[in-house]
Amino acid sequence: MPQKFEFRRHATDGRARAGEIETPRGTVRTPAFMPVGTAATVKAMLPESVRATGADIVLGNTYHLMLRPGAERVARLGGLHRFMNWDRPILTDSGGFQVMSLAGLRKLTEEGVTFKSHIDGARHLLTPERSMEIQALLGSDIVMCFDECPALPATEAEVAASMRLSMRWAERSRTAFGDRPGHALFGIMQGGVSRELRAESAEKLREIGFDGYAVGGLAVGEGQEAMFGVLDYAPEFLPADRPRYLMGVGKPDDIVGAVARGIDMMDCVLPSRSGRTGQAFTTRGVVNLRNARHAEDPRPLDADCTCPACRGYSRAYLHHVVRAKEMIAGMLLTWHNLHYYQCLMAEMRDAIGEGRFAAWRAAFHSGRAEGDIAPV
Amino acid sequence: MPQKFEFRRHATDGRARAGEIETPRGTVRTPAFMPVGTAATVKAMLPESVRATGADIVLGNTYHLMLRPGAERVARLGGLHRFMNWDRPILTDSGGFQVMSLAGLRKLTEEGVTFKSHIDGARHLLTPERSMEIQALLGSDIVMCFDECPALPATEAEVAASMRLSMRWAERSRTAFGDRPGHALFGIMQGGVSRELRAESAEKLREIGFDGYAVGGLAVGEGQEAMFGVLDYAPEFLPADRPRYLMGVGKPDDIVGAVARGIDMMDCVLPSRSGRTGQAFTTRGVVNLRNARHAEDPRPLDADCTCPACRGYSRAYLHHVVRAKEMIAGMLLTWHNLHYYQCLMAEMRDAIGEGRFAAWRAAFHSGRAEGDIAPV
Repeated sequence: MPQKFEFRRHATDGRARAGEIETPRGTVRTPAFMPVGTAATVKAMLPESVRATGADIVLGNTYHLMLRPGAERVARLGGLHRFMNWDRPILTDSGGFQVMSLAGLRKLTEEGVTFKSHIDGARHLLTPERSMEIQALLGSDIVMCFDECPALPATEAEVAASMRLSMRWAERSRTAFGDRPGHALFGIMQGGVSRELRAESAEKLREIGFDGYAVGGLAVGEGQEAMFGVLDYAPEFLPADRPRYLMGVGKPDDIVGAVARGIDMMDCVLPSRSGRTGQAFTTRGVVNLRNARHAEDPRPLDADCTCPACRGYSRAYLHHVVRAKEMIAGMLLTWHNLHYYQCLMAEMRDAIGEGRFAAWRAAFHSGRAEGDIAPV
Repeated sequence: MPQKFEFRRHATDGRARAGEIETPRGTVRTPAFMPVGTAATVKAMLPESVRATGADIVLGNTYHLMLRPGAERVARLGGLHRFMNWDRPILTDSGGFQVMSLAGLRKLTEEGVTFKSHIDGARHLLTPERSMEIQALLGSDIVMCFDECPALPATEAEVAASMRLSMRWAERSRTAFGDRPGHALFGIMQGGVSRELRAESAEKLREIGFDGYAVGGLAVGEGQEAMFGVLDYAPEFLPADRPRYLMGVGKPDDIVGAVARGIDMMDCVLPSRSGRTGQAFTTRGVVNLRNARHAEDPRPLDADCTCPACRGYSRAYLHHVVRAKEMIAGMLLTWHNLHYYQCLMAEMRDAIGEGRFAAWRAAFHSGRAEGDIAPV
């Protein structure tokens, strides 16, 4: 295996970029959507099915895996790839975002965050150094800096203090990560919705130097307009020759808007979580299969889709298994939703490569508005 | 498609038989194990995965399907095969057994059974005629007579009265079924643990004439010894040239013992239900993957098994996903268990065909006793 991590841009179209990230475990075509495999499984999917949807990379959660089954245990078992039977690239988050959301169960200091496990109440300390160690034990291909993300609403002073702490932690993360050929470390920009703070954060990250850069602190309840407001300028603060990752995004139109603004990578639980609750993403909008109007509908969920749910079953069947709470409902709809997301990314990559992204984007929005399935 | 239903015995070895049932939708190799697809899905499995385990036929439940989504609806949608995306043979039960277990919610008369739906409380009447109509609407390949099965404990007089009612219903079922080329109707022998009542029931069924015969009223809590006691004589009361079906059985050693006593077909929820609760059947006994001793075990569940759970994952991973209540646990362990059951049937068919069933059976019992995995 070539021991290198490399990002190549093949095309730009407006601010949108298409390319690929080469890693020792395989190539990630960008713009890329990463399904979330929180606890060493993309819920309701076998890994070969995740791959069949077109995914090149999945995301694992440091917070969940450190608590169960434990990073040292995963390492003794040969690492996360072998453990979960996924031999392609894995990106792991740093645990920072998830411990921050444990309001009342955690204590933040300069050193790091002390928190109690939601599983057994045991006390844990997560620092930049321990996060780097855990992500190395897991065998992650793309490691994220340990950062802090303030809960909203926050004053500008709080956002600034938090961002500067994250930048000090970014420096400690960089030092602790060391030199690991074939593995990448991404910095995470913070700064809320302040252009000045985003610029300061980006400058600090560039000064430290990373293999890729994430835009953090978005998709935390600020709304699409505010998020796009930040994305209108923030990606350009980052080096053009490194991948840019927008964490935790999003709905299909969030993703399209982010790609249009220069984002290369995204992850979100939405397609898998929605699949387990009976919601399907289609070219014509969101379909809620619990709705009684599907009960006798012999048509496939999406006639243009080639996923197993659309090739083998009627909307009536999907409605039935959603209502009957059968596992096959979550299995088929998760597969469909991940397939839909991957098709969306593939279409965008093609459109950017062929210099017709603006036209594609207009068609995407009008197709969704004119569909025969009303959005829910 | 040839519009015929035919049973061919290829070999007998002692009282064990190997053969095949030919139907317009495909061949069922016997002895056959039928996975249970209660509500138009074998829980936690896609139908192509059910087929990949080696299943030739699945079972559907009239009681569940008549309530949701409803037999007329399934018929309007093209029948059960198309609805659930399984184009091979389907056997449906009659609904009799399940409405009988609705103690307190049902009323039994000569005409049939009135009961309330467990889903919405709506009142329904199930009769031999309605059961035949529902099974025809579903498009079942092998239709079961509507019968009554008394709850245990029952006096011999109660068992006799119930059996005679079931025989009157068998006659009404036969008349209502009519002539449907390519579709089979099976009679169901009753009579509890009484040899005289079993003989009387079998004689009545032979007089009416069916395409196959089930041994009913067993696996209802009487224990393996009592069940085998009945199977020591009851199958031979039935025509040798028709398939014999033991309903609702069972554990692997129940199945082996039934095949040894001349049974050709069985069904049970055990492999799929156990899979969803973390229990796996292996050549060396039952493994409970919740058990902490598996937490760091890098070995596959069963080194000799070729199912996806055994090829791709360690016992440590299966333990982790069972504990974390991840859907993949039920998906992988159901697949493994159904694969185990189908391998068991294939081994028995081969052994019977080669005249070495007694030796195979002895090895089966000793292998389970000597294994490195203690039974739970």
